[in-house]
Amino acid sequence: MKITVLAGGVGGSRFVLGLREAVRRRADAQAGAAVGEWPGGASPDEITVVVNTGDDVWLAGVRLMPDFDSLLYALAGVNDTERGWGRAGETERVAAELREWGVGWPWFTLGDLDLGTHLARTAWLREGLTPSQVGDRLQRRWPLGARLVPATDTEVDTWVTVDAAALGDSVAGAPADAPPPDGAPTRAAMHFQEWWTRHRAAVPALAFTQRNLASARPAPGVVEAIEGADVVLVAPSNPVVSIGTIVAVPGIREALAATSAPVVGVSPIIGGRVVRGMADACLPVIGVETSAEAVGRHYGARSGGGIIDGWLVDETDASALGPLAEAGLVAAAVPLWMRDVDTSAALAEAALELAGALPTVE
Amino acid sequence: MKITVLAGGVGGSRFVLGLREAVRRRADAQAGAAVGEWPGGASPDEITVVVNTGDDVWLAGVRLMPDFDSLLYALAGVNDTERGWGRAGETERVAAELREWGVGWPWFTLGDLDLGTHLARTAWLREGLTPSQVGDRLQRRWPLGARLVPATDTEVDTWVTVDAAALGDSVAGAPADAPPPDGAPTRAAMHFQEWWTRHRAAVPALAFTQRNLASARPAPGVVEAIEGADVVLVAPSNPVVSIGTIVAVPGIREALAATSAPVVGVSPIIGGRVVRGMADACLPVIGVETSAEAVGRHYGARSGGGIIDGWLVDETDASALGPLAEAGLVAAAVPLWMRDVDTSAALAEAALELAGALPTVE
Repeated sequence: MKITVLAGGVGGSRFVLGLREAVRRRADAQAGAAVGEWPGGASPDEITVVVNTGDDVWLAGVRLMPDFDSLLYALAGVNDTERGWGRAGETERVAAELREWGVGWPWFTLGDLDLGTHLARTAWLREGLTPSQVGDRLQRRWPLGARLVPATDTEVDTWVTVDAAALGDSVAGAPADAPPPDGAPTRAAMHFQEWWTRHRAAVPALAFTQRNLASARPAPGVVEAIEGADVVLVAPSNPVVSIGTIVAVPGIREALAATSAPVVGVSPIIGGRVVRGMADACLPVIGVETSAEAVGRHYGARSGGGIIDGWLVDETDASALGPLAEAGLVAAAVPLWMRDVDTSAALAEAALELAGALPTVE
Repeated sequence: MKITVLAGGVGGSRFVLGLREAVRRRADAQAGAAVGEWPGGASPDEITVVVNTGDDVWLAGVRLMPDFDSLLYALAGVNDTERGWGRAGETERVAAELREWGVGWPWFTLGDLDLGTHLARTAWLREGLTPSQVGDRLQRRWPLGARLVPATDTEVDTWVTVDAAALGDSVAGAPADAPPPDGAPTRAAMHFQEWWTRHRAAVPALAFTQRNLASARPAPGVVEAIEGADVVLVAPSNPVVSIGTIVAVPGIREALAATSAPVVGVSPIIGGRVVRGMADACLPVIGVETSAEAVGRHYGARSGGGIIDGWLVDETDASALGPLAEAGLVAAAVPLWMRDVDTSAALAEAALELAGALPTVE
């Protein structure tokens, strides 16, 4: 079975780890074999992950692709599970030097092991490789049990528009005590990573803008992975800046509309709260309530021009099933918390089962 | 007194450290003060070092300027004195990752602290700063007691031509057992760092070629530092690939000819042997014998179109004084080994004294 997942870094990694395990268990069950160690059963090319590139950034002259690397490290088993990001056993020798030199963002630490990845990526980009070609090289190092493809090779770094007055003195030239004479807010723009990491998404965002979006195209293989899939899954990632960016790349929404595969999404919201990340700071910006139902409606049924057919919400959000059905979605309520690989695998299995239960689109 | 030194990294660092100490002692003696801690006496702008850039290299997407950094680290006192290069307390976390990724040269290790410098430099170069502007920023971090200026902002990386057959199987496409039909040697070219560091200069060089040399210009301040100096010193650095590259930058030889300052060089050869480095692998390539006398003659008397007036050789090479005098050079024999800052300072003092004893050129 060919499964294609749209995913961001944090929720995406947990979900894909679970999916890999679910696929392995299915293969083991099918073979009648005892549950062996992955990748005994599953073929690595069964899972393709279309990875968000909206939070990529040039920093200190090197190219960071945080979501891609999060998935890479998690699937390779070299991620820092306690901290939740970066490599296990990480150090920060170079970052301390960069801080001394005044290069980069002092509030954004580049780990040494992680920097090795950024430097390799940047060297290959400078040699003329595309981000997806670089991604192919990077994932040769470890057996991942999944193929990672950046959504686009175009740099669609997300910028955040904020009210400059809300920044106070932290932004030069936009003092909080000197509004323009007409009282209109002065707007400022910052890279998504500055808003997200430095300001912890606490400065109200007015808009998210992916650069170069009009001229962006899906990376090679992305449209094929969606259109040629047996199942398409939308991971419980940030609906605005992760899934939203992937779907905003011209051609991807069209591929989701065209695929004969069922498309099942997993809510990143449980009981009106974000599972992880800060999606609640992003959803209001696009006028979407922070609820499993609202995000499901925002993605929308493919029958009505949306991007999903099925939608998984948490058991505590079962009251949303009725309204979601009215919106044309086949919704189901299952345990949504991904606490470990078992709960993640159960969630992925539920998504696959919902996909299997959907009426076939021809 | 304004002193300008032409220098490479290894011998240059030791010599400039000694010179800084000699200048400090002179200032202390002049002030009648007790010998205090530098920089009590000397003004930091008294010493300008014109630094060789011929062994600079782009590696793994970052710009290395090894001689500049050697001088920077040595003058800042953060160099590894035991190993003889790089930063003290160095680690190699990122380099191990780069090796895993297959990026860079596996035989050329980038230390983590050193890499911080390279990344800062590269980020600033990408922002549009010139190498000398980058150098200005880098030397703001520590009080150096000297000003470092790269000889040129043009990338004049040295390439080494070798007989491809001498490389054997180590170079793809140039098998040792398949010479061309006419028997002529197939030539191969490699970056100086590959020849120097990977092959330890053991593959016979046929020629050294500095790239972009025809269009190169001295970095801002270099000509002024030479023409406006009270004394110009040529450090005991590699006469071919260090001093040779500096002087080959169009405009620098002319500045050496034009300056009213005496120009005194220090031999990097003692008793027919190289003090440090592998100059003996370089001198034959340009047809110069590995001896203090031959290098002095190679630099040549300014009165005869050369670049020096005075030449310091080791006491054991005193027999060369007569022939050197015949060649128009004012030579002196002094202890040339720089074992510590005292012997280095004594050597620098001897160079300053020889310069002071030279007839003034008007």
